[in-house]
Amino acid sequence: MTIHAYGARAKNLSLEPLAITRRAPGEHDVQIEIAYCGVCHSDLHQVRSEWAGTQYPCVPGHEIVGRVLAVGAHVTNHKPGDLVGVGCIVDSCQHCAECDDGLENYCDHMVGTYNGPTADAPGHTLGGYSQQIVVHQRYVLKVHHPEDQLAAVAPLLCAGITTYSPLRHWKVGPGQKVGVVGIGGLGHMGIKLANAMGAHVVAFTTSESKREAAKKLGAHEVVVSRNPDEMAAHAASLDFILNTVAAPHSLDPFFALLKRDGTMTLVGAPASPHPSPAVFSLIARRRSLAGSLIGGIPETQEMLDFCAKHHIVADIEMIRADQINEAYERMLRGDVKYRFVIDCASLAEN
Amino acid sequence: MTIHAYGARAKNLSLEPLAITRRAPGEHDVQIEIAYCGVCHSDLHQVRSEWAGTQYPCVPGHEIVGRVLAVGAHVTNHKPGDLVGVGCIVDSCQHCAECDDGLENYCDHMVGTYNGPTADAPGHTLGGYSQQIVVHQRYVLKVHHPEDQLAAVAPLLCAGITTYSPLRHWKVGPGQKVGVVGIGGLGHMGIKLANAMGAHVVAFTTSESKREAAKKLGAHEVVVSRNPDEMAAHAASLDFILNTVAAPHSLDPFFALLKRDGTMTLVGAPASPHPSPAVFSLIARRRSLAGSLIGGIPETQEMLDFCAKHHIVADIEMIRADQINEAYERMLRGDVKYRFVIDCASLAEN
Repeated sequence: MTIHAYGARAKNLSLEPLAITRRAPGEHDVQIEIAYCGVCHSDLHQVRSEWAGTQYPCVPGHEIVGRVLAVGAHVTNHKPGDLVGVGCIVDSCQHCAECDDGLENYCDHMVGTYNGPTADAPGHTLGGYSQQIVVHQRYVLKVHHPEDQLAAVAPLLCAGITTYSPLRHWKVGPGQKVGVVGIGGLGHMGIKLANAMGAHVVAFTTSESKREAAKKLGAHEVVVSRNPDEMAAHAASLDFILNTVAAPHSLDPFFALLKRDGTMTLVGAPASPHPSPAVFSLIARRRSLAGSLIGGIPETQEMLDFCAKHHIVADIEMIRADQINEAYERMLRGDVKYRFVIDCASLAEN
Repeated sequence: MTIHAYGARAKNLSLEPLAITRRAPGEHDVQIEIAYCGVCHSDLHQVRSEWAGTQYPCVPGHEIVGRVLAVGAHVTNHKPGDLVGVGCIVDSCQHCAECDDGLENYCDHMVGTYNGPTADAPGHTLGGYSQQIVVHQRYVLKVHHPEDQLAAVAPLLCAGITTYSPLRHWKVGPGQKVGVVGIGGLGHMGIKLANAMGAHVVAFTTSESKREAAKKLGAHEVVVSRNPDEMAAHAASLDFILNTVAAPHSLDPFFALLKRDGTMTLVGAPASPHPSPAVFSLIARRRSLAGSLIGGIPETQEMLDFCAKHHIVADIEMIRADQINEAYERMLRGDVKYRFVIDCASLAEN
């Protein structure tokens, strides 16, 4: 089956309309008509070959929502007409300790939604900037939000789970003071989620201009991190910090804000490392620096259900597929509040 | 009361005999005749002003064991004749959350056994390279080892608790595979303790020559970390790594050996930071980098009791006080197995 998609034919080319094929659904597969696909910074890194090993043609997109068109004979959890989502993972080994624990994101054989190994043509996975996708049922999530919010649900599949998973893993909840560093695609979800989990949320930004916006997202306090006095007011008071900033920056000023036994978890992966943290920043109060990578399938479903219950979606700006190159340039300038989402119906026009 | 001690009168001078005074024991104080004092790398850093703020005269030493000479009227836990120890802490605020939790080591007002603030002359604390010390009862530990092991107990008060505390905090025990990086004063205790806690212990050293010694200390396996094949054999298999190396070194090869959710805890504080760890090393398996600073008073007592029960002491080389400058030079060359201990009776000869 040939469908319309949007992607890049080579490293130095812009994204353009492409015709791609999807496999016929197998016994365990779900065939999905994609309604919307969020635009993640990873998409840009991959398509521009800023990360190693990009294979072309490259069709990015791993924040996918849509409706089930058909299911294989052994599919029990999904049926035609259901609203569903697909995130960053479309396959894994299904039998290692990580998969057994529902943490397919840490499986050594996890297959990404794009640029991952597959038997399907052209030999690597093609993502959600397309009209349809066919995915093994294990990696398909149920969406219980109202249908008119579907576009704003899309970013939950990456930005949502990437922030939800560490907030849950480090047991963020009532009575805790939690920092969220960076107010972008990931950070704006981190603020909403930490607030809904009952924590006192302190947002950190380098931009005075984001102060009011962060409060509207759910931050109880906002700190402009370039201001040492504002930072000092929170010294040794935070239980947990979710650091969403992918640009290299000094971590030490944020460590100083953690209580004893506090953890700062990085979810942004900079192209070059952050300046090395002072060992004393860690030793002084038995602090930890950790990392977290998206999330597993069961917790992604849990996150979607949590968001539906708490009326949480992403703040988005909808674009047509043919606006994607311009959207990338705006994303690089930080000119998006807070996530672009492609209306995949626009692909039919190409 | 004036007593003999050994210390430095100024930054660039060697250690030499000094006469110092100790306060008369107050109501809560324990007056201790020091039998032995271990020689810690921190002593050397402090006395040579390699750490900021050294005050002179500087008398180092925070691995103190001896016998109670006298106690104040309100001292209930100790009596004359008891074998006791004093570690790195001789005072703290006694009413903050850290002190309430028995983690005086993380109290903002923790007073070190040397170079800390005090009302006693000369205005800063003087450590264990001396004949006597007077310490508030809260910071005095009971020693239950046989008296003939007393000298080898001394290093437990810093090297022992510094390694015991993180091993306990990160719940090292049976069924776990635990790495100990560096086989020196701290590392040799880490191996003994992790073994006694029931873990499978893998020691990491840069020296082929330490392989057999590490096994004798209790390592089940020894890896020469310069050998990539030996390292690769342990990829993603360790639950916890205790890193005792204070010299800057790349942490990434060790992160690669941690399982999902594994932690590497630093207990050595290098003068300059380690090369910055790759963020992906942390994100890939939700790993953590942590730090830990000595330990609290209750857990120091727990450690001493654990060591007495398991017949654990440090491996030491006894020296006279007048050999301390030579011992520092040997320590810098790594020429000690694994801790120098000063026989404080030798101070009477000065």
